[in-house]
Amino acid sequence: MQISQPEQVGGPQAARLDPAELAAIRATAAALADAARVETLRHFRRRDLPTDNKSGAGFDPVTEADRGAERIMREILARQRPDDAILGEEYGHQPGRSGLTWVLDPVDGTRSFMCGAPTWGVLIGVTDARGPLYGLIDQPWTGERFEGGGGHAILTAPQGDSALAVRRDVALAGATLLTTYPDVGTELETAAFRRLSAQVRLTRYGLDCYAYALLALGQVDLVVEAGLQPHDIVAPIAVIEAAGGIVTDWQGGPAHHGGQVIAAATPALHRAALALLAG
Amino acid sequence: MQISQPEQVGGPQAARLDPAELAAIRATAAALADAARVETLRHFRRRDLPTDNKSGAGFDPVTEADRGAERIMREILARQRPDDAILGEEYGHQPGRSGLTWVLDPVDGTRSFMCGAPTWGVLIGVTDARGPLYGLIDQPWTGERFEGGGGHAILTAPQGDSALAVRRDVALAGATLLTTYPDVGTELETAAFRRLSAQVRLTRYGLDCYAYALLALGQVDLVVEAGLQPHDIVAPIAVIEAAGGIVTDWQGGPAHHGGQVIAAATPALHRAALALLAG
Repeated sequence: MQISQPEQVGGPQAARLDPAELAAIRATAAALADAARVETLRHFRRRDLPTDNKSGAGFDPVTEADRGAERIMREILARQRPDDAILGEEYGHQPGRSGLTWVLDPVDGTRSFMCGAPTWGVLIGVTDARGPLYGLIDQPWTGERFEGGGGHAILTAPQGDSALAVRRDVALAGATLLTTYPDVGTELETAAFRRLSAQVRLTRYGLDCYAYALLALGQVDLVVEAGLQPHDIVAPIAVIEAAGGIVTDWQGGPAHHGGQVIAAATPALHRAALALLAG
Repeated sequence: MQISQPEQVGGPQAARLDPAELAAIRATAAALADAARVETLRHFRRRDLPTDNKSGAGFDPVTEADRGAERIMREILARQRPDDAILGEEYGHQPGRSGLTWVLDPVDGTRSFMCGAPTWGVLIGVTDARGPLYGLIDQPWTGERFEGGGGHAILTAPQGDSALAVRRDVALAGATLLTTYPDVGTELETAAFRRLSAQVRLTRYGLDCYAYALLALGQVDLVVEAGLQPHDIVAPIAVIEAAGGIVTDWQGGPAHHGGQVIAAATPALHRAALALLAG
């Protein structure tokens, strides 16, 4: 098994984005996130929130908040970044010609949103042909915004701003592992997750994109999920890589196309976790 | 199986607490919660948070935040309510002579706290011989305070204040069910939980006391847990009963001694869930 380091997966972010372009992307991303805050908070904890079922089987909720927030972000991009492509959860792919793609998940964690829990987020990522360049994870209710790109990662919050950096001193036996669903994926995927879970100190569930934000914040050490879509993971990859962490698929390859994803604070945790996931 | 309605379990809160006494309790509870906010936030997301293991086997983290917050709350009670008894998670029982007991959990959800997730809470309850009279669930990071007693329940938050009221129009097949751990308790308890989980629309994990707050807020419909201690549940019972909901054990009896607990938004959901838990 080939285990890639982050430099081998996407290349160093800083080398692929000059400061002026990074500043322009950050400004547009802030405008998108500000607009999505207003739109999502109009619906959050509303007592008559309508939910549709967009999946034929099972339960895949789509709310007006998802659709409204993605529409308003697309309108801003049409004005500010007309040459860039867009890939959004609700309204699909729109081609561009700049080589950059904005990857949008207007409400990651719709189920958390429906429960009134402040652990969903607005995800905004920017990729080039090689992978994620920039990412933003916004929690509108708490006012926390986790942002990474160009080798820098910060949290802005009502309580103050702080640099994001993964923690580096935790061994696997002392690690905290997060995932969203106890049934992580297929039976094989769930069994693989449990092999890993059995070796860490603490496993917690249910945090969606907030789990990746907590890893970038140096509060947890591993996030492992399966069955992800690109819009679920492009922004978290950029934030975590900028904070010094590693995100790959379960084979150590690029994760920005979704599927099985592992995020780790350190190369040692990443190696140990990949070995356990492989069986 | 006897299924009790809330009036039969604890008696109406309003009839057991006159307005002056309720106002005095609320003022002291606010002082406790304010002090616990300062103490817990000194430690929350600190990168070098020390954790001890107070359990012989397994992992039962106690942090300085837990102990410090309970000490400071006990100091305030010693000054303001010297005749009341205290039952706290970290420092045990202290007798009183008023007939009232303050039930304190300085950090409910220590594991969430250790992950940096804003879903733990400070729990402050007041009981008489018949059960919970008043409760407060405080989330210091978000600034949300859920409070119930004397038949009134409110949320105070940076975004504004609002009355707490359970929602009443959701059938079991459309209900949202929360619990903290996927392995709810013993094998039999977990199997009982899964019978219920299979009949609801959505099951989510990991929210600790915040789950009960969301039920009082009308965002979710059922919370089911096992293995609770009195300090985990006295405050949530008072908040949920004041918001119009029902909290009992899995047999329909009083829940304030802990163990198996079910909280439901309506009598119909409560009945249906108890039947499924019983098998």
